[in-house]
Amino acid sequence: MRAQHAVEYAVVRTRDVLDPANDDLAKAGAESEPARRCVVTDRTVERLYGDRLRAYFQARGIEARLVVLDSGEENKNIGAVMHVVEAFDALGLLRRQEPVVGVGGGVLTDIVGFACSTYRRGLPYVKVPTTLIGQVDAGIGAKTGVDHRGHKNRLGSYFPARAVLLDPAFLATLPERHIANGLAEILKLALVRDRRLFELLEQHGPRLLRERFQDLNPAAAGVADEVLQRAIGGMLAELEPNLWEDELERAVDYGHSISPALEMSVLPELLHGEAVAVDMALTTVVSCDRGLTSAADRDRVLEVLSALKLPATHPACRPELLDAALADTVRHRDGRQRIPLTTGVGTVRFADDVTRDELRAAAEFLWNRGGEPHEEGSRWPMN
Amino acid sequence: MRAQHAVEYAVVRTRDVLDPANDDLAKAGAESEPARRCVVTDRTVERLYGDRLRAYFQARGIEARLVVLDSGEENKNIGAVMHVVEAFDALGLLRRQEPVVGVGGGVLTDIVGFACSTYRRGLPYVKVPTTLIGQVDAGIGAKTGVDHRGHKNRLGSYFPARAVLLDPAFLATLPERHIANGLAEILKLALVRDRRLFELLEQHGPRLLRERFQDLNPAAAGVADEVLQRAIGGMLAELEPNLWEDELERAVDYGHSISPALEMSVLPELLHGEAVAVDMALTTVVSCDRGLTSAADRDRVLEVLSALKLPATHPACRPELLDAALADTVRHRDGRQRIPLTTGVGTVRFADDVTRDELRAAAEFLWNRGGEPHEEGSRWPMN
Repeated sequence: MRAQHAVEYAVVRTRDVLDPANDDLAKAGAESEPARRCVVTDRTVERLYGDRLRAYFQARGIEARLVVLDSGEENKNIGAVMHVVEAFDALGLLRRQEPVVGVGGGVLTDIVGFACSTYRRGLPYVKVPTTLIGQVDAGIGAKTGVDHRGHKNRLGSYFPARAVLLDPAFLATLPERHIANGLAEILKLALVRDRRLFELLEQHGPRLLRERFQDLNPAAAGVADEVLQRAIGGMLAELEPNLWEDELERAVDYGHSISPALEMSVLPELLHGEAVAVDMALTTVVSCDRGLTSAADRDRVLEVLSALKLPATHPACRPELLDAALADTVRHRDGRQRIPLTTGVGTVRFADDVTRDELRAAAEFLWNRGGEPHEEGSRWPMN
Repeated sequence: MRAQHAVEYAVVRTRDVLDPANDDLAKAGAESEPARRCVVTDRTVERLYGDRLRAYFQARGIEARLVVLDSGEENKNIGAVMHVVEAFDALGLLRRQEPVVGVGGGVLTDIVGFACSTYRRGLPYVKVPTTLIGQVDAGIGAKTGVDHRGHKNRLGSYFPARAVLLDPAFLATLPERHIANGLAEILKLALVRDRRLFELLEQHGPRLLRERFQDLNPAAAGVADEVLQRAIGGMLAELEPNLWEDELERAVDYGHSISPALEMSVLPELLHGEAVAVDMALTTVVSCDRGLTSAADRDRVLEVLSALKLPATHPACRPELLDAALADTVRHRDGRQRIPLTTGVGTVRFADDVTRDELRAAAEFLWNRGGEPHEEGSRWPMN
């Protein structure tokens, strides 16, 4: 048996998607504007944008049914998926003509995507990522999923939305910490493939963080836009030839070797991008220790992390956690580490032989460097 | 974003798959024989074949871990999927190199397939269908899934196994009722595309049922084999161009318009094929009433159903159930009925305008015809 499946989806940069004059959301993912929409969002977005969402659909003459989930990685579980599925059942959605709309951060769109992928083996949907990390990472790929029994994204699917609407206006209400969270994934992309993007972050990072990509500074107009464009374009270019991850050596897995276990072990203390930042710091040091990256480049990376208010270390990075993280990453990458290590800034190679001693030495280096605030005089907490 | 996904899987007819001299199971789905296998089965198969399964893997030097699920459609739910997922976690399966093996009927392989499709967004697996319906229908397609809140296969995915091993030896221990269950799907395929297959069932059906496809009668050697070959080949030919059901007018949906709601409403009274048989009888009568099928052909179909010990009606086929079934089928087929109706024997056309009165009249006709044993003198139980 041989069959081919073509997948196509639109990633649309738009402005003021909740303005009733903007057609994008009303028409998204459908051939003709559906008469009703099931809209799934989270409590935070509902609080900030619920009224405007309802007003938008009302103005368009579309009957919108809002389903509101709890926010945060700690609620990204199969129970949330079942909650969404029950709403689909209650509404009696048609199988293809009434695409669901998910409005929220990466957690929300991952849950909605998973629910849609399983309901009748696939209900079309549309993503409206409201966070920076959603707009440059989780929201624009094909992965869906939830955490399960302490494992990050253990259950999920490859099921892209029919359309993704990216509206930077949402970022204006994002707490600074969540901007940094997204900047971590942008930095990742810069480190593995885009030196110019790294330089933009080096030069403008703190301002982007402060101004939430709203381009308030006329002196550097267009920087936020260029950063978003390079980040989104770069991510899509990495995903397109390997959307189903047939190839497990993925540059975009940079920062995602140790971080899943770290993030889960301290849930909900670290945001995803913060755990990724710690992982990038660790592997940057490993890369430097191996002579793949100069000490100068290592320090530039660590300085950008710090300027973006991202952590470079965490007390949970103890040897046992590093071991467990590595072991699960090996299972996830089918028996080999396939750890992306940067070679300088903007390029990457893969390693299968990173040792626990290397990681431990890197963790200790970062701890002693004190890039991250920790108790005065505390020592690297290894056994 | 545009991407293409190629899917390829092997459907292998084999003999005595649990004989340690047979390589098929040991190597199935893997490039090199894995050192261990997670084998998921159900209580019935474990009772009948558990010792031989264990002996097979032991003889091959493969460490087999058996996970045993409760049998039957009433246990086909998300809880069973989570149970399987927990076993995957406990074993720490590698993502690609250790394909899971599902040994059992259609319910079991649907559950295992769904668990595999969600675990790390896709763990490869192999199916060994042990029932006739599994070997000609559920086991050879790409669909996975479980029932949810009274809805048949409401949650699931398209995720074909890497390989399907079909061994008719398993059918020898199948209760006659389960042979009839599979014959219902074979009859479906005959009615929509294969007149020769219908004639084989007409001529040899009762013997196939009695002899469980073991070809015990030398006078008609090869009939069981020809029936299986036509059924499997026909099913694959229908699936191949439409594996992801982009086209919702599917001839193989014949018998699957009313039956999902019927099967669920009386669970576990009717086996899947029995509910499909009732649906086929109903639509055969509708087709005859519309002048698409002659009364002679209608009666031939009803006689074959009866000879295969399949029901043609059921007291639950009341107007309310028929209405609800039709409404959900319309949702499932995206706003139109797309009901396959046979035109004679071996061809099909699609209708969007089947009325409740037509179905009601068909149900009443079948009830009064008395093809199905029911209380003496009882009347068609409509309101």
